[in-house]
Formats: sequence, C-alpha cells, structure tokens
Amino acid sequence: MATQRLLVDIHTHVYLPRYAAFLRTRTTVPRIFSRTSPTGQQEERLVILDNEPSGGRPVGAQYWDREEKLKFMDRHGIDVSIVSTANPWLDFLPAPTAHELAVELNDDLELYCSTSPSLSGNDLKRLYGFGLLPLVPSASTESLVETVEQIAKLPHLKGVIMGSRGLGKGLDDDALEPVWAAIEKAGLVIFLHPHYGVDGKAFGEKDNGHVLPLALGFPFETTTATTRLILSGVFDRYPNLRLLLAHSGGTLPQLSSRLASCIDHDPVVQSRLKHDARYYLGKLYFDAVAYGSEELGFVSDVIGRSTKFSAAPSSAAASKGLGISQKRTLGSQRMLFGTDHPFFPPLSETAKWKSVLENLEAIDGVDGWGEAEKDGVRGGNALKLFDLLG
Amino acid sequence: MATQRLLVDIHTHVYLPRYAAFLRTRTTVPRIFSRTSPTGQQEERLVILDNEPSGGRPVGAQYWDREEKLKFMDRHGIDVSIVSTANPWLDFLPAPTAHELAVELNDDLELYCSTSPSLSGNDLKRLYGFGLLPLVPSASTESLVETVEQIAKLPHLKGVIMGSRGLGKGLDDDALEPVWAAIEKAGLVIFLHPHYGVDGKAFGEKDNGHVLPLALGFPFETTTATTRLILSGVFDRYPNLRLLLAHSGGTLPQLSSRLASCIDHDPVVQSRLKHDARYYLGKLYFDAVAYGSEELGFVSDVIGRSTKFSAAPSSAAASKGLGISQKRTLGSQRMLFGTDHPFFPPLSETAKWKSVLENLEAIDGVDGWGEAEKDGVRGGNALKLFDLLG
Repeated sequence: MATQRLLVDIHTHVYLPRYAAFLRTRTTVPRIFSRTSPTGQQEERLVILDNEPSGGRPVGAQYWDREEKLKFMDRHGIDVSIVSTANPWLDFLPAPTAHELAVELNDDLELYCSTSPSLSGNDLKRLYGFGLLPLVPSASTESLVETVEQIAKLPHLKGVIMGSRGLGKGLDDDALEPVWAAIEKAGLVIFLHPHYGVDGKAFGEKDNGHVLPLALGFPFETTTATTRLILSGVFDRYPNLRLLLAHSGGTLPQLSSRLASCIDHDPVVQSRLKHDARYYLGKLYFDAVAYGSEELGFVSDVIGRSTKFSAAPSSAAASKGLGISQKRTLGSQRMLFGTDHPFFPPLSETAKWKSVLENLEAIDGVDGWGEAEKDGVRGGNALKLFDLLG
Repeated sequence: MATQRLLVDIHTHVYLPRYAAFLRTRTTVPRIFSRTSPTGQQEERLVILDNEPSGGRPVGAQYWDREEKLKFMDRHGIDVSIVSTANPWLDFLPAPTAHELAVELNDDLELYCSTSPSLSGNDLKRLYGFGLLPLVPSASTESLVETVEQIAKLPHLKGVIMGSRGLGKGLDDDALEPVWAAIEKAGLVIFLHPHYGVDGKAFGEKDNGHVLPLALGFPFETTTATTRLILSGVFDRYPNLRLLLAHSGGTLPQLSSRLASCIDHDPVVQSRLKHDARYYLGKLYFDAVAYGSEELGFVSDVIGRSTKFSAAPSSAAASKGLGISQKRTLGSQRMLFGTDHPFFPPLSETAKWKSVLENLEAIDGVDGWGEAEKDGVRGGNALKLFDLLG
C-alpha cells in the first residue's frame, strides 16, 4: 500500500444532517436560524455561544454535506479525513436526549464514513470518524460506558471527540473514572476540543470580532482542561489512554516548565503525581493546527524532551543530552496534520484555503524535521495512531 | 568596565516598608495580618486575592528588607537587580490615595536604590527600580502623566511596573493614549505583570493549591493584555514604546501565528493594524522566567522571525530564510534573566533557590545560543535596555 505519503486530516468537523436539523428546531443557543442578509439574500446562520459577535456565522453545505467535504479534500490533496462533530456537541441537552442523539449520530457518522469512497490503490476509506458521548450533567456511568462500547463496535469510528465540561464539573471529576477505563480498554483516541473559552470579561469592551475568544480563549480552555487532567492523576492511572489535543495543545507546551515549577513548590499536589508535569506531555498527541513552523518545532521539542522528566531513572538518564534535532524527531511522531474545516474559510473565492495552506507550509518549514518527520505529521502518524494500516 | 558578564535580575519584587505598613492597616484584601501559626509561632501572612487558597502566604523580611534582597543576590551571584513593587500595586485604592502613595513609594524606591552599595569595579549600583503609576479608575490623565515625569527625573528608576487593569477597562483603553505618549517620551521601560489571572471557575473544584492560578492564570492574563494592546494599535502609534513582558510573555509566543490567522479572517480588525500580528512580538522584550530551555529557545525564535512579518517588503525580504540559529541569536537580544524573588522560595533550607537555579540552567541549556547570547540574556541585554552602561 502506498500509505507512506498520504495526507490525513485529523481535525475536520461536520454538523451531520440530523444534528443540523435539530439545531434548526431550537430557539435558544446553539441554533441555526434563517434570515434575509443585509444584501437581500436568504441565509442560514449558526450561533453556538451566548453573546456571539455579529449574530453568529453564515453556514451552508460545507457544514453538513459529505460531497462538500470530499470536494474540499480533493482541492487540498487530502487523502483521508477523521471527521468529528463540531462544538458544542451535545453539551446543552438533558441526559436522556443526549444519550439518544449520541447513539443516532454515531450510527449516522459510521454510515457517512463506511459509504464514503475508497482511497484509490489501497483498502482505506476517504472518511473515518470520532464518535460522541452523552457527556452532560446527570448522565449515568452506564449511559456513557454503553456509548463507548457502541463506538468501539462501529468499524469506521476510531475515537471520541470531547469538550472540557464532562458531567458539568470538568474532566478531573472522579465520576469519570469508569469512562476513562472504558475508553482505554476500547483503544479509542480522545480528541479534546475547546468550546467555552474563558469568561469574556477578560477580553474587554473593544470590538475585536471573534479574534480574542478564538485566538486566545479556545487554547486557554484546552490548556486548563489538560492541566487539570494531569493534576488529577488520570495519566498515571490510565497510562494507555490516548489523548489528542486540538490546536497543538493550546498553550500547555509553553507553560509546561512553569507548571512543573509551581507543582514543585506545592508538596500536596506534587505528592499526587508519579512524574514531573513535563513527562506527561510525551504521553499526549497534538494536532499540527498552529499556523507556524516555530510553534510546531517547539511542540515537538517539549514532546521529545519528556522522557528526561520521567521518575524512572533509567528513562531519564537515557534521554539526557538529546540535541534539538533528536527531540524534534521524537516529538514529531505525536503530531498530526489538521485543517479545522469548515471553519476559517477564505474571505474571497480562492482555489485553496489560506488556513490550510498555512498549516501545510508550517509543517514544511520546521527546522530540524526531515522529509520522514514531515511525512509522519502529514499522514503517517495518523495512520498509526488510528490503526488504519490494517 | 567589566560589565560584559554581569548577572542582572529584572524580575524581582519588593513590598517597600511604607507599602507593607499600609497593608497591615487594612482589613480587606490585599492585607497583611498576624496570626498564631498551627505550630504555635507568631507569623505574618499576606493575602492578595479574594478566596486565596490556604489563607494567603507567610511573609517576612524577604518581602521588605533591603539587606535580605542583597543577601539573596549575593547568594545567587546576582550583580544588579531592577526591583519592582509586587502585585497588586495600587490597583485597589481610590485615585487620590493611589496618586499620593505612588509619589511617596517612587521616592522611597529611589532612595532604596540610590543608597544601595556600588558594584565593585564599576559605576553601577546594585539596585535600580521600576516606579509605580496611580493606574486606578478615575485617575486623571494629569495625575498619570505627572507621575511618569516624576519617575523620569528619579535617576535610579528606569521604568514602571504595570498590571493589566489600566483605569478599569484594560490597557486598550483610549484614555491611556497620553500615558503611552508620556512613557515613550520619557524613555521608560514598562514591565507588564499579571495579578488577576482568569475567572477561578475555570479551575474547577479540586484543591490544587496555587498551582492553576499561578501556572496558567497569570500567563493567560499577560497574554490577553498584550494581545489587546497589539489589537488596539498602540505599537503602531508608539513604535518606540518598550514593553517588557513577565514570564516570557505568558503564552503569546505560542499563540502568535494562531492570532495572526484569526486576524487575517477578520477584515475589520485586520484593517486597523499596520503589520501581521507576529511582527509586534519583535518590538517587545521578554523576561527569561520560563523554567525551561526549550521554552526560552522558542521565545527567541518568535522574536527572531518577527521582521519576516513586517508590512515593509524590504524588511520581510531581508529576513526570509533565516535559519534557527540566526532567529535564536536575534531573538535572544530581547530576553532578560529574572528570578521572581521573593516568590517561589525553596520549601526547605537550601543554599540556593531551585526556582533561580532552574532559570539559570534554562538559559545555559538553550540549543543554538552561544556564550554571547547567554551572557546577553543573563545581563548584557538588561544593561542596554535600561541604559546602565553610562
């Protein structure tokens, strides 16, 4: 199989037709509504956050139509996409509705993938997916574990996408232990994705459109959720849990040594963890949706240095003195190309999306990555992580 | 003068005796109070945030006594310190009190520095300072500009330390324009430092001590404040403003390409700025308080790449294709050693503070920095930025 040089997009969203139809029935956020645009056209708009600037965003076929996803993939040379429902998932629903809709949407997504075209020249489909769990307040453990098991049985679903709220108390909630156990046992990948950002008061009164919540709030949320997971000891208790972080881990890489230092100065927190905080970054996976080569190189550095911070003296010793190119090579193996489609569309009609080109150029421009590392990030790592090699 | 290899600490705080005495008179946060400790000792504790975990922190001579500062410097081989009042500065005071106390504390700090020992072998003092402005709601422009001018006349004060609240609406407030103009004209360095973090609800219900607000909340605040300044166009209007960011800029370096991409997709915000967001990182200064070599190397990369993102085609062209070592060399020139003393003290009696050693080791271990770059970060860059070379 010529799978060595495939381009695989692991960060690409869909509002499945059933989900979009459901949002159209709603009168409160999140919702899709129709209006006459300022230029007199009929248009649909999606609002996913309270007080969203500019009345939400225009939505269309890109958000739900599989043909549009495939056209986008063809236009950018993307061979395979691992598609996930976009935020806010089922977060806003009562537990029974969330469970029912999760099960239906998982079946829908399986069909969306299983009936997609095959990739020419090998056994792969063009589309795979991340399923949904009914992670909402009052969801029962049984409901969650049952949905994990449903997803595990659907052959084209390779993981679950997850926000940061859990059952309402965040992901460091003890009540989620059986869920981590079930996901680890099923071998599913968790794609951790932000939705809520931070309290908008932090962004002040000036009109900066979506810039501050998207550029800063989203990554802050991912960073906080992942840090709370680390501090809760989840990665010590479930060492085979595979967590993929959106937007290259937000800001966790840049704060990881500061985090380690703060933990070092708090004996109670420190006593709960087996390793230095920086060790856990080497257990994670990071998408390569950061729009810059220096950012990607740095993320690979912090992954690559992680074993130096193992509590096991032999691991730590073996990794002492790794040079930058060795750290970058090691780290690149846990980084995966993504586009964030259908978000960040170009402002004018162009053949290719700037947001996609920037992420591809960023991979291509990382100092210290050779062609093998770049091919890995573009697709090879995804094939391994999602066990697509057969 | 043998100033080439001095160790200069630009991130080191003091609660001047007048300020500490004032905090002792208060019954609400921020305050210093006395209590009998669980082990039966009389102790003073400082509380600077509402709902601070564990009843605040123990404080003692390290926080106000100049002899303790000098002993700390001697113990760690620090030749010169640029001392600043610690958070929350004057943020909590009515404008007239804030103005009066700012003027008095600036005079106090000038005396603290001017009567400090001289550095053997040259004309430098051991201590210099950042002054305080009465940046509180209802402060008048006259009061602020007058205080800038007071500081500019005090020969041992080289800048101002500033939080993120401004006059209550943040630093992107149009009402601050005359303040930026006055600071730029006076040639003072602004040291931007966090205090408020983010809404504590983000950190959940688990008891993680101070870890999350300190490790994440602080850097998020600095990042947000600096980004809002960039978006407001302050650096386009005051191109000679010198802003030094605490904790290596928080997370702005890791989010800078994402920020640029978000701005690129918002024509209104984009039209307000002269350059790509990444350009402005090359106008800033960053302390080297990040506790890790990979973090410091990365910060120098994003500084070093900044001219590539200039709107001036000649600058952009000249910097195309800079290799990693060139970016790191260029970037290192805007990075400056700091300790965050008297915070992060060691948990047990040791000769040297782990927090200080880690920051020194981090500088020493940056791939691609030679001795010249490391000497610059340890002291040479500070001598230039604060014009201490005479």
